[in-house]
Amino acid sequence: MFTTVFLAACGNNKNNNENSSSGTQVISQTNSNYYQGVIKKGHYLTSKSRGVSVQQNDNQLNLKGFENGLLSISKDHFPTDDYILQEGQYINTDTVENWLGRKSKSNPDGLNPEGKDSKEPLYLQQMDEQDFMTEDHDSLKIKGMTIGLGINSIYYYRKEAYGAVYQKTLNEKDIVKQGKEIADKILQRLRKRKELKNIPIVFALYKQAPNDSLVGGNFFASSVNNGNNIKNSDWKSLNVKNYVLPDETSKGVNSNDENAFENFKNQIQKFFPNLSGVTAQAHYVDGQLRGMHVNITTQFYGQSEIISFTQYVNSTANKYLPNNIPIDIQISSTEGMQSFLSRKTGSNNFYTHVFTSY
Amino acid sequence: MFTTVFLAACGNNKNNNENSSSGTQVISQTNSNYYQGVIKKGHYLTSKSRGVSVQQNDNQLNLKGFENGLLSISKDHFPTDDYILQEGQYINTDTVENWLGRKSKSNPDGLNPEGKDSKEPLYLQQMDEQDFMTEDHDSLKIKGMTIGLGINSIYYYRKEAYGAVYQKTLNEKDIVKQGKEIADKILQRLRKRKELKNIPIVFALYKQAPNDSLVGGNFFASSVNNGNNIKNSDWKSLNVKNYVLPDETSKGVNSNDENAFENFKNQIQKFFPNLSGVTAQAHYVDGQLRGMHVNITTQFYGQSEIISFTQYVNSTANKYLPNNIPIDIQISSTEGMQSFLSRKTGSNNFYTHVFTSY
Repeated sequence: MFTTVFLAACGNNKNNNENSSSGTQVISQTNSNYYQGVIKKGHYLTSKSRGVSVQQNDNQLNLKGFENGLLSISKDHFPTDDYILQEGQYINTDTVENWLGRKSKSNPDGLNPEGKDSKEPLYLQQMDEQDFMTEDHDSLKIKGMTIGLGINSIYYYRKEAYGAVYQKTLNEKDIVKQGKEIADKILQRLRKRKELKNIPIVFALYKQAPNDSLVGGNFFASSVNNGNNIKNSDWKSLNVKNYVLPDETSKGVNSNDENAFENFKNQIQKFFPNLSGVTAQAHYVDGQLRGMHVNITTQFYGQSEIISFTQYVNSTANKYLPNNIPIDIQISSTEGMQSFLSRKTGSNNFYTHVFTSY
Repeated sequence: MFTTVFLAACGNNKNNNENSSSGTQVISQTNSNYYQGVIKKGHYLTSKSRGVSVQQNDNQLNLKGFENGLLSISKDHFPTDDYILQEGQYINTDTVENWLGRKSKSNPDGLNPEGKDSKEPLYLQQMDEQDFMTEDHDSLKIKGMTIGLGINSIYYYRKEAYGAVYQKTLNEKDIVKQGKEIADKILQRLRKRKELKNIPIVFALYKQAPNDSLVGGNFFASSVNNGNNIKNSDWKSLNVKNYVLPDETSKGVNSNDENAFENFKNQIQKFFPNLSGVTAQAHYVDGQLRGMHVNITTQFYGQSEIISFTQYVNSTANKYLPNNIPIDIQISSTEGMQSFLSRKTGSNNFYTHVFTSY
């Protein structure tokens, strides 16, 4: 069920106190795409700032997209087969809350600009820490870290409590500049911790999507700091974009991909006697479509309809949607998810599952 | 995308008028466990009594369980590789509604007993018709039919509109007797239709679960009528039972299966810092566990937690839950389904999927 990292678990008298009585263990990896996680004293080791990100995002897609994107970036630097993922243990809730606040006399560590809400926007909206561990003799040692910073693209604020919500679109240049400055300050603070002095620390900057967006934001820059670097000196631009299809604004999405989706959508809507809502999230890296999440909502009156519709969506997706990218398709009614289909990169077949009940 | 059954689709002048202009087509089978469905004039051919069953079930588990169970029974008589499933086209909405009503002067076809709600319970609660077709030269011909009848185990009624709901537990013997008599009446009515005179017609009787049950009811009898039989003379008892785990009443569930689930549940709840609700539907045929649907609900604060929890559930399920049966596990939060796992009969591995977003 889980791999015991230490023989210490059964009462051996070990030097390392932390691990002697109950032991630290890792969760078996069931899919090489996922990291192993850490169990401590029988419980899953959650983040020290658990829950803060949830509160920080009015649009939960900015939370899911941010975390998933950050995991992807981490995998490039800390492969899932070589490292164990420990949820952030160095920056706790109080610290994150202070850092996300404005700099002021009472909050000298605040990473957002001093000033009034109506004059000066908040840039830093959320942050996430991921720790990468390896087994070293009888304990887990930190060998790398990734810090994700979510920077606002639109700043939402109120002039009075419960008052109207105002919004200010932030300047692209300022978003980049503020993100990088904040990253430097955090790097310097982290390097003061003994265990973090010499490990590689990766920073990734994310531009938050507007609150009404049907897709999350996107990562636009990352930087790797080896050894004891205390300044991010090697920023790399990331060309990651997420769009919603159908694309009302017609900017960004490749027209072939857009036509493919339109054809798919038309076939689906023609087939079923109830109106089906068909939308998708399209994920682009360096201008290339790299993945798609399709959402289909419709009314169903029975299991046979769901099964037939799912089989139809399967063949229609194979015929019309782009090849060689991973695609997830969720089919839902007002009662929740009814079935889903998933195709991996390089595969020609969808895995399909129709949810049933006894 | 779909197989064209007729060459007629492109304007050939055919004898069979119905199929000449637009053609009837079947949906490709993407999984040998599913039937092909029927497309007519470009649209999916829905049931003629579409939607009635939804209204008839206060507990929607009685609808899902009924339909899935009926499909299983049908597969025994009309294999998915040999027959195409057409949703019921012979009994329409008006007819079903009349048949489900009480017999009376104004409704001579009513299959429920005459009398007042407070004196005489309604037995027949829902019915479903499934048509089994084969391709015969240039058209689909009906070659078999299954009729499912949902019989109440508890009769719920009001003495006045919007008044209190009363309930009466129905006698086992009466449930069986009424179900069989109703089946005979329906069989006689169906045999009057020319196309249905000589085909095998299968009847299956289902005992509806109470409205507050967390699992649907169960099929208790079936009968196959070959040729032009007009009376169900060969009823076979079905020993199918569905239970909810943990089993508060401790009746029916095999104690090994119950212990296995309890161990699984305890491991899950120990692991995660939030209380996790862990329940299951257990499906028994002839006293043997034949399948399980596990539902886990818990609060999550991030994607890494969901991924780790899913991997943990995977290995825990492999270790503790019974082997050699199909198992579905859904993991949900208040935001909906977060991940799911599914293992087929005979497999040692779960397919796992964590729902993500860009």
